[in-house]
Amino acid sequence: MLIIGERINSSRKTIDRAIEARDAKVIQQEAKAQVEAGAQMLEVNCGTRIDTEPEDMAWLVKTVQGAVDRPLSIDSPNPKAIEAGLAVHKGRAMVNSITAEAGRAGGILQLVKKYNSQLVALLMDEKGMPQTSEERLAIAKKIMGLATEYGIREEDLYLDPLVRPVSTEPKQVGEVLKTIRSIRSLGRVKSIVGLSNISFGLPRRSLINRAFLAIVLEAGLDAAIIDPTDPEMITTLKATNAVLGKDEYCLEYIAAHREGKLGET
Amino acid sequence: MLIIGERINSSRKTIDRAIEARDAKVIQQEAKAQVEAGAQMLEVNCGTRIDTEPEDMAWLVKTVQGAVDRPLSIDSPNPKAIEAGLAVHKGRAMVNSITAEAGRAGGILQLVKKYNSQLVALLMDEKGMPQTSEERLAIAKKIMGLATEYGIREEDLYLDPLVRPVSTEPKQVGEVLKTIRSIRSLGRVKSIVGLSNISFGLPRRSLINRAFLAIVLEAGLDAAIIDPTDPEMITTLKATNAVLGKDEYCLEYIAAHREGKLGET
Repeated sequence: MLIIGERINSSRKTIDRAIEARDAKVIQQEAKAQVEAGAQMLEVNCGTRIDTEPEDMAWLVKTVQGAVDRPLSIDSPNPKAIEAGLAVHKGRAMVNSITAEAGRAGGILQLVKKYNSQLVALLMDEKGMPQTSEERLAIAKKIMGLATEYGIREEDLYLDPLVRPVSTEPKQVGEVLKTIRSIRSLGRVKSIVGLSNISFGLPRRSLINRAFLAIVLEAGLDAAIIDPTDPEMITTLKATNAVLGKDEYCLEYIAAHREGKLGET
Repeated sequence: MLIIGERINSSRKTIDRAIEARDAKVIQQEAKAQVEAGAQMLEVNCGTRIDTEPEDMAWLVKTVQGAVDRPLSIDSPNPKAIEAGLAVHKGRAMVNSITAEAGRAGGILQLVKKYNSQLVALLMDEKGMPQTSEERLAIAKKIMGLATEYGIREEDLYLDPLVRPVSTEPKQVGEVLKTIRSIRSLGRVKSIVGLSNISFGLPRRSLINRAFLAIVLEAGLDAAIIDPTDPEMITTLKATNAVLGKDEYCLEYIAAHREGKLGET
């Protein structure tokens, strides 16, 4: 499973201040810490900074890639901010995200094609958040049609079934799991979730995130946006890969144990 | 999910010595600790003590039920030990276990009927350990037929798909999960596993057990034989029930947090 680090987001005060002050050190430390912890890609988001988002995004992309050799997921609904990021990005980026809202995705789809990037699509449309997995799959097919129209390959498309807080919407988990399982039958498209949305509003969020991570891995999830610096998340990932037989003879798990990388408890 | 405590087993040296010395205090402390930790039923096993198993089992059952008000799972392949335990058991016991081995289960089935107990059946027969979920389901149907013949109700029958160590048999996990899911379609019969078998031979077994617990709960497991005094197991159970929407609005999880019962990390 592709691990995308979520920590460089201007909704966090330290990140917002660092962007404002163009303090590269703070951003680069966050980038390095996430990569050392196991992130294979880093998300960058400065969506709270509406007035300056495009130039902030360009600075973020350059700053992060100045410290770590990893592709970034450029997270914005704003085509201008996305293009500002893509224009300075080294290698193949990911763009997060489009929806199936009528007539709204075209600009971003053109950018994804132009910069040959990967794409995250949220499984929602102009009717708002879907309730059932059937609604999500109908939207998935609509989005796959759109992506094909713009010449984007199936394997570059990640579908996000929209994880909602279990504390307020307990029935949505089952629908999300069904959607992840069904995405496998749609072809070479992939599934992605913003994992920690599940635990919003609950205490000890990491416990909920870990249980959910084990379950979505079994369901076949392809990518997750997580906090890799929570050592329990990476430990859970390694233990679950071992349990599911994805880590042959548990060699990676055993190696992580020997290197003291399985956390404390 | 029914939590069955696994700790009173003569394969553990402290338990073997306590049985030998008829040291009720040691056994009763193990019983109380497991119930306080959340066990709803306790397993008792003195199978390593072949020569004295029946009288040891009778003593164990009386001793444990002298300390805690819980039903016991009497774990033995020996009908004499099982009857010795059942004869002194208060309330409805569980008997663990029969297999589908031709001509071998009759004695135990009679006891289960006579004492109106619940029954665990291992999904194996004279051909040995099954490989696929299909083989397991064929055996399940054979056992259901046998149980019906002896007048045992479907809802009193727990089927154990036989969890094997993932370190040596990585493909069996998928078969076990498929079997648990399929058992739900067989009627009112239930599924049970000896959970910690999954991590045999691996370091940091609790990490593997926890990941597996989250996954089998999602698959719909009805009962698990675990070590409830491992605080991480109960924490994982509560977090997973919350994630799966089995704990409405996460009220139980939140209460456990407030009472400081979610462990340290």
